[in-house]
This record gives sequence, structure tokens and C-alpha cells, in this order.
Amino acid sequence: MDPQIEEQLTPFRQAVKEQGDIVRKLKAEKAPDIDVQRAVAELKTRKHALEHKEFELSPKDDFDRSKMEDLLKQKFFYDQSFAIYGGVNGLYDFGPMGCAVKANLLQAWRNFFVLEENLLEVDTAMLTPEVVLKASGHVERFQDYMVKDVKNGECFRADHLIENTFEKMLADKKVSAEVKEEIKKIIPSIDNMDKEEMGKTLKQFNMKSPVTGNDITEPIDFNLMFATSIGPTGTLKGFLRPETAQGIFVNFKRLLEFNGGKLPFGGAQIGNAFRNEISPRSGLIRVREFTMAEIEYFVDPTLKEKFHKFGDVKDLNVTLFSGCRQLDGKGPEKKTLEDAVADGTIANESLAYFMGRIYLFLMKIGVDEKKFRFRQHLSNEMAHYACDCWDAEMKTSYGWIECVGCADRSCYDLTCHQKATGLKLVAERKLDEPISFNIYIYIHVYYIKYNVVECKVNKGVIGKVFKKDAKTVSDTLARMEQTELEEMNQTLTDAGEFTIKSGDQSFVIKSDMVTINKFQKTVHVEEFNPSVIEPSFGIGRVMYSLFEHNFRVREGDEQRTYLSLPPVIAPYKCSVLPLSNNAQLMPFVNQISKDLLKFDISHKVDSATGSIGRRYARTDAIAIPYGITVDFDTLKEPFTATLRERDSMKQIRAPVTELAQIVFDLAQQRRSWEDILNNYPLFEQQESTK
Amino acid sequence: MDPQIEEQLTPFRQAVKEQGDIVRKLKAEKAPDIDVQRAVAELKTRKHALEHKEFELSPKDDFDRSKMEDLLKQKFFYDQSFAIYGGVNGLYDFGPMGCAVKANLLQAWRNFFVLEENLLEVDTAMLTPEVVLKASGHVERFQDYMVKDVKNGECFRADHLIENTFEKMLADKKVSAEVKEEIKKIIPSIDNMDKEEMGKTLKQFNMKSPVTGNDITEPIDFNLMFATSIGPTGTLKGFLRPETAQGIFVNFKRLLEFNGGKLPFGGAQIGNAFRNEISPRSGLIRVREFTMAEIEYFVDPTLKEKFHKFGDVKDLNVTLFSGCRQLDGKGPEKKTLEDAVADGTIANESLAYFMGRIYLFLMKIGVDEKKFRFRQHLSNEMAHYACDCWDAEMKTSYGWIECVGCADRSCYDLTCHQKATGLKLVAERKLDEPISFNIYIYIHVYYIKYNVVECKVNKGVIGKVFKKDAKTVSDTLARMEQTELEEMNQTLTDAGEFTIKSGDQSFVIKSDMVTINKFQKTVHVEEFNPSVIEPSFGIGRVMYSLFEHNFRVREGDEQRTYLSLPPVIAPYKCSVLPLSNNAQLMPFVNQISKDLLKFDISHKVDSATGSIGRRYARTDAIAIPYGITVDFDTLKEPFTATLRERDSMKQIRAPVTELAQIVFDLAQQRRSWEDILNNYPLFEQQESTK
Repeated sequence: MDPQIEEQLTPFRQAVKEQGDIVRKLKAEKAPDIDVQRAVAELKTRKHALEHKEFELSPKDDFDRSKMEDLLKQKFFYDQSFAIYGGVNGLYDFGPMGCAVKANLLQAWRNFFVLEENLLEVDTAMLTPEVVLKASGHVERFQDYMVKDVKNGECFRADHLIENTFEKMLADKKVSAEVKEEIKKIIPSIDNMDKEEMGKTLKQFNMKSPVTGNDITEPIDFNLMFATSIGPTGTLKGFLRPETAQGIFVNFKRLLEFNGGKLPFGGAQIGNAFRNEISPRSGLIRVREFTMAEIEYFVDPTLKEKFHKFGDVKDLNVTLFSGCRQLDGKGPEKKTLEDAVADGTIANESLAYFMGRIYLFLMKIGVDEKKFRFRQHLSNEMAHYACDCWDAEMKTSYGWIECVGCADRSCYDLTCHQKATGLKLVAERKLDEPISFNIYIYIHVYYIKYNVVECKVNKGVIGKVFKKDAKTVSDTLARMEQTELEEMNQTLTDAGEFTIKSGDQSFVIKSDMVTINKFQKTVHVEEFNPSVIEPSFGIGRVMYSLFEHNFRVREGDEQRTYLSLPPVIAPYKCSVLPLSNNAQLMPFVNQISKDLLKFDISHKVDSATGSIGRRYARTDAIAIPYGITVDFDTLKEPFTATLRERDSMKQIRAPVTELAQIVFDLAQQRRSWEDILNNYPLFEQQESTK
Repeated sequence: MDPQIEEQLTPFRQAVKEQGDIVRKLKAEKAPDIDVQRAVAELKTRKHALEHKEFELSPKDDFDRSKMEDLLKQKFFYDQSFAIYGGVNGLYDFGPMGCAVKANLLQAWRNFFVLEENLLEVDTAMLTPEVVLKASGHVERFQDYMVKDVKNGECFRADHLIENTFEKMLADKKVSAEVKEEIKKIIPSIDNMDKEEMGKTLKQFNMKSPVTGNDITEPIDFNLMFATSIGPTGTLKGFLRPETAQGIFVNFKRLLEFNGGKLPFGGAQIGNAFRNEISPRSGLIRVREFTMAEIEYFVDPTLKEKFHKFGDVKDLNVTLFSGCRQLDGKGPEKKTLEDAVADGTIANESLAYFMGRIYLFLMKIGVDEKKFRFRQHLSNEMAHYACDCWDAEMKTSYGWIECVGCADRSCYDLTCHQKATGLKLVAERKLDEPISFNIYIYIHVYYIKYNVVECKVNKGVIGKVFKKDAKTVSDTLARMEQTELEEMNQTLTDAGEFTIKSGDQSFVIKSDMVTINKFQKTVHVEEFNPSVIEPSFGIGRVMYSLFEHNFRVREGDEQRTYLSLPPVIAPYKCSVLPLSNNAQLMPFVNQISKDLLKFDISHKVDSATGSIGRRYARTDAIAIPYGITVDFDTLKEPFTATLRERDSMKQIRAPVTELAQIVFDLAQQRRSWEDILNNYPLFEQQESTK
């Protein structure tokens, strides 16, 4: 940290810490809720002021958003929907490049999470009947405040209107210095205002409809879900789902059964969700229709402190901005996940494990580590269902934005749906000890009696009869299942002998070799609602951050902007360029293209005219990581072509027949570019776009 | 064909042919529309009767739908949505197995179409403002007829109500033989009734609400789109899109530009669409929310007779049920696509090319060729936009169902959106000859004048100076672009010389070696609305057909049902099974699992107890094509394990280290099972599920 910047921040940090201590004290004293809430509101105001200052003082990189947006629009990564009809706010269409990036991102997500974590992926209905979203709390709580122009009915999000009005007033010479001072004090608290406070502020500053100057209404609750009616009668009210999570919860019993009744396991879903934002803005960041990728990982709440795969991630050193440090007015710190769990920063290993996996995934797809942090929700920010929650935030030109949430939702959702449906959404655990009857009736403990067949081996007889094979016979008998034992028992009774197999050997078992007992066994089982860890990815936001983090300008050539997306995410993996439009080159171009298709490698053949440098610039702009150029040396034996890497612009020559395999290995990250450089001769040539 | 069956069908065929001839005659005579329509309605009635009879007489395979549905439900391929809340008709959730099949199917589609055809894939908004769907014709025309119970308001699809009432009447002893005869005559025409005819039939048979017995209303037009309101004001009416196609059309200009202004090219989209069916039924076949994969391939209408890649598919011998054969009361016939275009059965090569690609794709993913046909729409069945249309139909226990449409939509859609927006949705073609002014103003022909720099090489001087390199120099000069020539011209004027490069050679060009001319050129350009070929896949229907076509019962063991889905579609590619729960086997199981993950191969480790035969049966049930078993021989050097193929149940032994690569090659169809059998020793062992 720059000490000069630190110095300027010190008073802001102190202000936060003072208030943080007050909040802690009130909580420790179990002060009335209303007092705590007031203190927390003030705390957030101060935190906001600190963050504003930090952002203001942080060293500016030379990122130019409008330049990047030009590139993304021009190459049709994404653009506004229905633009030929004037467009609709908050709706975006992905063009070929954006669509490929999105498909690659989702495929990488599927490989990284569904495959590697063995998740049970589902694909459930978007149309959702009202009763389900009433149970989940969305009908009641999923809302923003809006105000309406009393004359023309135009709607505004109340907090946005306040912000915009303040901005104008601050720039207005006619507004007095005192009023400006007051406004500056209020600005940081806008995000945390409740309905009453907003109404008060709107009145105090006599705010009007910004376009017409008409009066506006009091703030009104506005539910963010899109309503529709399912079926022709108009009686079954439904909504477009506001998240994909509920589709997993309502299928919990089927998934548990699919998993053989065992915990832990995770459900996953990739799909669209919808939020009828009052005033969408910030491009892909706040939209009305978006793709999410969510995991609901179900664990036994008594076991979530430990997680069987935590060892795989415990040493990751990640940037954590804990609630505690936020209260203290400090910045984030780097810490291993193991330490963070040990000192109580992260609630449990289960939550920390998924934070580690989220971190690894984001790094793999090209997020800039320096523009990444996990920020913990303060207890009053937490959604109604969560008991601990961390956001993976990415720094962009819009500030730090939440891209992935990772919440411990406890058993909130399953309990809600259980109450609403009257069906038990529970898993079972076997108890070592029976629990006394008193407790039993409250927490769903019950007894199961079942029949057991047990086979005791008569070692003496088996040893004598089978000699060196005796162990094999004993092992085989020990592995037999209940139904097989049952069958053996029956056959021994009926026929006096029974044949068992091990590999390609057979052994005849007689009645004197085994003693078979049948009896009843009692097992004590306790039912419980599993806890849920929920990593939830906003795919559009992740994509937007990736674009910002990977937007580059070629040194010494300001016009040459490009995207350094990693191969796994890049829309095309490879370009194939004939050096000129000489007809002799085309058979090689076509053969290489066919070879690439055999590996399902997306690629672009660019046989347009133009200098090779200019054509490379074009492929760089759409993030193509590798470029194969067929030149006049390709025509000579041994047929070779050049392979260029986008970021370093280094080139090698390799045999034409090996190129598809090389690109495949590079794109799958099974081989590094360094390794290729070490194994093939470098090809030196200046790139000129002139 | 069985001659006995043919004999029974003859009168039905004749009846169709007679009526077909009448329709042809009326058309040839240009009879009034109303006469043609009446004749066509009667024709369809007869065709329907023929089809019913054919289906009734066709040899029954031993397919048992309820057995298959048991398997699909039990293994959670798919099931009704929101079942814990009582379920919603027409909405289905895909469980882990169905979801994986769907994801694999879409990935295969993307590789086969988007990659191989170089399509421009988009991902556009589902929420669609009304104005767009008014222009496309959906607000006016996308509807069914329904009737309501006058007392409780319950809704029924009019055609379904008529069908169901007739079914009950036919089974009712109190209904007279004459009435039953009349009903039998009407049944085949139900699908083709218009609103008036339906109203008449409902009255004639005094039909009532089936549950309450109350009176019903006249048939009412019911639009099948789900309506909602976009934004908070309630003034922007929107619908959930009923197809993905419109998202491509409204982006036509951007896609054309992305493609450098050149035709032909195709847009593609995979995504959900929604239809508010009045009474959904037949499982996955008629649902309210479903996934489509659509292509809109834009071609110059004057060039669509020929298609540059038609040669790749022309020899395919496919089952075609042309309109002509339908009119003649004949069955479908096998014909090469080349012949079908040549004799006019299929309108043009562009349409035929995509029919060929659809056929190849469906065969690749496991459709049974014997249960597949292309059926041509009769002119009166065609959607309002199409000028020729073929459906890829699959035979299932529900009859022949349309799974993929392939329509020549002509320029209908672009023209509609052009009219509605006032923006030109056109491509351009250069004319060899200017068109006279009279025509010009009507069909958008215009002149472009642009500056041309031309370089004439002075061969004498170049030959003398560069000798053996003279050709390289001339070629390099010939390849130079306009801007480069401009630059050379300027530099020669200023400095008298200019350096050009070819590979790693440089050459200095002097003023006397070239003559540079600058002049204006006039080009004639004609604008036109492209024609569109639209292959449109209903993913749920394709999946359902795949399940039926690949459902198998193991010979000699009726309980062992399984799915023989090809590896590319199967939810898991491979299982890994330890022969017993002996701890020594686990390190090998884990290593193999890790190796498979390196290749992103989805697989299932099943370490549960149970005989190996029973475990294979379990993996067969979820269509896992390959199974690796770690047994006690695996523990000995050279470490090997067995690999089993699902359909043949044959097994080989292979080194543990080679298995992941083998399974990858098999799953990617880069290597055949035959090839594996020839290269590894067979492993012989009886499978027993006992």
C-alpha cells in the first residue's frame, strides 16, 4: 500500500472502527434490536465512505471502458436485444463470440464442478407456480422500492432517483454549500435506507420526476418477479423463477434417492432466471434475464465443520475481507483457507471448501487475482435464509461487483418447502445409541427392525478341504450379500451343497463348512433437514469481469486492442490463415481445418486478403489464442506451417500433420506453450499491420 | 411389406388416391379456393384413416411403454415439475441422467452443426415485446380453439374434448350403431376442423364438460403465448418467446455484418421456448416449456437451387414421404437426395442439403433408421411462412411424431420485420450488368463509385533487376492491398523507392519498375431479402424418441431393461467398479477415475456391494456404454483391468494406464469397439445377476 494513500484513508478507517466497536458493544450487551439496527446503518454509511475514498485513491490503470465496449459491440460479443425495434432495457443478446464464450464458460463449469464434484445436475422448469415462491419467501420479500410520476405513471427506482437528484444538485451552482454538505453526508447511506427513510429524503429535498418535473408518489413495494398465468383458465398464477435454486430444492427427495439416500451430495443447475428490475443499468451487470449456475450442496449439519475434501484446498492463500475487518475499517487480508477456518473467520470447512473451489475455477477461466476478493456479508446484509455468506467480488470499472455468492443457507429452504407441502424433506442418520423416548417424538427418531442372515465360516473344515484355496473361499463367503446367503441357506437345506465362484474358480460348499444364523436387528434412525452450502454464479457478471480483466492494448499500437481470454474460454481456439490467396495454399488450409474438426476444435478460417499482421490483429480482437499460417514453405516437404500464440506473439514451425493435436493439447491445457516452444523451432518474423 | 396387410390397405389407398386426383384436378383448373379447401379437408380425412389402419396393422414390436417409463422415472431421467406441490401439467424436470443426455445431445448438435457448418450461434432474450411477435404473425395466428365449462370456467381444447367424447360414446352400449358409424366417419377429420366445424360438431352431439356435465361455450380462439409485462409500469406488454427463430431474425443485420456482408451463412440458437398448451399430454411430446435448437440459413433466393456442399450428402438414401405420394395413397419411398432434387420431390439443393444433415445427425445420436422418415407438408398444412416444408418424423408408441422441421421459409420473416421497423433487412449482390433505371427504383439497385489504385508491373525492368526472384517480386506486388499500394505510391513519389517483403526476403522497388494508376470505378449493387432455410429441432421430442428407440430388454432376463444410447449421448461414458470392497482395489479405482477426469470423461464409480453382474445391470439401465472392473488380477504386474461394452457384453483386458485413452477414443467415436476387440485379449466370464 502506498503510505500517502494510507494516510488519507486513516481518518475514514478510524471512523469505521469507532462505529464498529459501538455495534459490537451493543450486540454484546444484547441491546434492543432497533438500537443495533440504527448503529449498523451508521456503520454502513461510514464503510461506504471509506470504500468510495479507497476507490478514488486507488491507482488508475489505463483501462478505457468505451474502447472495450467498442470492441465487444463491433465483434458482436453482445448487444441490446430488439434494437431494430428500439431495444428493451435490461435485455441483451449474445452474438456468435459472446455465445461461444458463454458456452465454453458453462462447459468449463460443468467439467470443474459437476464432473469433478460428482454433482447431480438437473434442468427444471422456469415457469413456477406461485405457491412454490410463496413458500420460499420470494413473493413476500423479493422486492425493491419504486416511485411513480403522479401524472404519466413513469416509474423510477427510489434509490436511483435519490442518487441522480443528489448528483445534479451537487453540480448545481444555485444549491448552497450547506445543502451540498448535507447531501454528501447522506449519499453513502442511500443503499441502506428503508422505505420510511427514502420517503423522508424524497420529501426533504422536494424531489420530482426527473423528465417531467411532476410530483412523485411515496415509495411503493415492487416485487421483482415477472408474473404470468399458467394454463388457459387464468386461475393458476405463476412467475418466471428469480433463481434456479428452488428447482433443486423441490427435487430434493428424488435426488437423495438417486444418491442412494446418502449425504453429502450436491445438486446443480445451469439455467436462466428473471428479475423485473425497475431501472436496469451497468450493461450486463444488472439485467432482467440472465443465466445462473448454482450448486446446492446438502450436508449433515452436525458434520459440516469437517469436509472430506477440504485437504485439496486448505493451503490456498486467498484474499478475504471478513466482517470483522470491515467493522474495524481495515482492508482485506490474504490468508490460507485452513487458517481462516481455524481462527473462525470462515464458519466451517464445508463453506470454505466451496470458496476454495470457486477461487480455483475463477483463476482457471482468466480472472485477475489482483482484482479478486471474497467479502463476507455483515449479519444484517445477509439474505433472509443465510447463516454465513461470502461474495466472490471482482473489481471492474463499475467498482467491486458481486459475481459469485457462497452462502451457508442452513436448512432454511428445505424447512420452508416441508412446512408448505407437509412432506418430510429429510435425510436419515443412523445412531450409535438409541435416543430416549422423550426426545424421539420431537426430532423424528425411529427404530427399524430388519432381518439379517449371518454366515459363520467353519475354518477347520474349510482349511482341510480347500487347503491353499481356503483363504479365497473364506473371502468369497465373507463378500456374499444377504440375498446370496439366503439362497445358499435354502440350497444347503434342500440339496446339501452350494457352488460359489471366485474369478474363474468354483468351489462346492457343504453344510458342515458354514453355520448360517437368521435373526432380527434393530437400528435407530434419526431424521433431519440437511444444511445447504450454496455457490451461486451470475454468469453474465462473471463474463463481463472476464472481458474487463482480459482487455489489452498492444504495446506501441493503441489501435490494436485485444482480449487475452484463456484458451478454455476463447470463442475460437485457433485460426487458419493462408499467407496469400494463392490457390496452392488452399488444400493445406482445408486439410488443417478438417483435422481440427476431428478434435471438435472450434476455429476460424480467414482467407480474406490483407497483410498477415492485420489478420492476426483481427483474430487477436476476438481472443483467438492460436493461429496457424500456411505459407509458401508449407508447400515444400516436409510440409510445415507456423503456429502463433496470441499473448506473446511468438511463432514456431511444426509439421502440418501434428498441428491439430498440438492445438487440442494446448486448448485442453494438457500441454503448455512453453513446452511447445521447447520442442519446435522458433519462427522469427516481424508482425506488421501496415 | 406383408401382402396380407397390403391387401387390407388397398381400399384405403384407393380412397386417398381418388380424392388426391380430385384435388389435383381442381388445382389445375384453378377452381375457387373454397372448393379446393373442401376437397383437401376430405383428402386429409381419408389420409388419416389410411394412417390409422396402417398403424393398426403394422407388426407390433414388444416395446412396453410402461416398462420404459418405470425405468426413466426410477433413474430420474425426467419427472413432473413441482410434484411435491401436486405438479403442474406440461412442465417436466430433467434429473441427473436426463440432464446429462440433454447436455450431450446439445453438445453433439453444436459440434455437428455450429462447428461443421460454421454457423453464427446467438443466445437471445426469451422475454419478447409484443411488437416483435405482432410483426412475426404470432400474436394473430399462434392459437388453438378452446371451450369453457360455463359454470366453473374449466378449459378444454376443443379437438381433445371432441375426441374424448367420441371415444366414450363408441364404448357406450346405449349409443346406437348408426350414431357410432357416423362418429367413426368424423373421427379422422377432427385434426383438420376449423372453428365453425368444431362448434357444429360440439352442438350436434350435445357435448358437455366432461367432469361436471355442465354446458360448454362455443369454441374460443386462445393464443398459446405466455403473456407478461416488462418493466414496472405495466405498459410494455411482452410474451415468452414461442420459438427461438425470431431472436435470429431481429439480429440479421448484425450477423450479416459479422459475416463480412457475405451470403450464404446461417444463424443458430439453442434455447427455451414456451407454449401455453390448453391441455398438455403425451409426456415430453406436448409440453409448455421446452428446448429448441434452430438454424436460420440465409441464402440468395436466386442461388438456392444449387448448394455448395450438396455433394457431401447427395448420395444419402433416405425415406421420403412426399406430398405427391400422400395424395396417391402410397407409402413413403427410399430415394437419394440427388434424385429427389432432380425429379422435383424436394424443392431445391439448399433445402435437401439440410435434410441430409438432419438425417446424418439423427442417425449419429441413435435414432432407429427403420422408425424414421421425412414427411412433406401438403400445401394447406404449411405454416403461414413456409413455401416448402419437410418434417423428420420418428415412429414411437404414440405414432409418428414430428421431431425436426425443415422449412424453406422464403423471405417471409425478414420482410415482416422490415415492414414493421422500416429498416432494410437486406443483403447485396453485385451485378455484372447495370440494370436499367426503370427497374432500379423498385428493387433497390444502386451504384457505388469508389477509388481504385492499380499497379501495373514493368516486367522488363523487374526481370533484369531481380532475375530469379522476379516472379516472387511480381507475385508480392500483385497481392498488395489498396492501402499498401496507396502507401507505395506516396513513398515512391516522396523518396523514389519502397521496400516490399516476401517471407524473410526484402526487395527494393524503384519508380521505373511499376506504373500506378488511380481512378474511380462504378459498381452496380442490388439489394434483396435473403431466403431462409430453417431446420428446427424439438429437443424434448428427439430425446423421447431416442429413449423409445434405444430401450432394450436383455434376452432371457425380462427384468433387465436397459438403454442402448450411443456413447456420444449416454449420460456417463464409463463406470469404474471394484470387484469387491477389498481395500487393495481402491487405489486402482481412484487412479482410473483421476485418469478419466483428465480427459473430461463423465463416469460413475460404483463401489457398492453386490455381485458384479447386478452392478453391470445397474449401469446398463442408465445407458453407461463402457465398464472398467478392477479385480484381483489388477493387483499383479502388469497392472490390467477389464473393459466391458454394454450392448455386446463382451470384455477385454487392458493395461490400467491405457484405459482412459481407450474410453476417450471410443466415446469420441475415433475408435470402434471392433478395433479394441482386435487389439486386446478377450476376457471371458459369465455375467450373473444372481
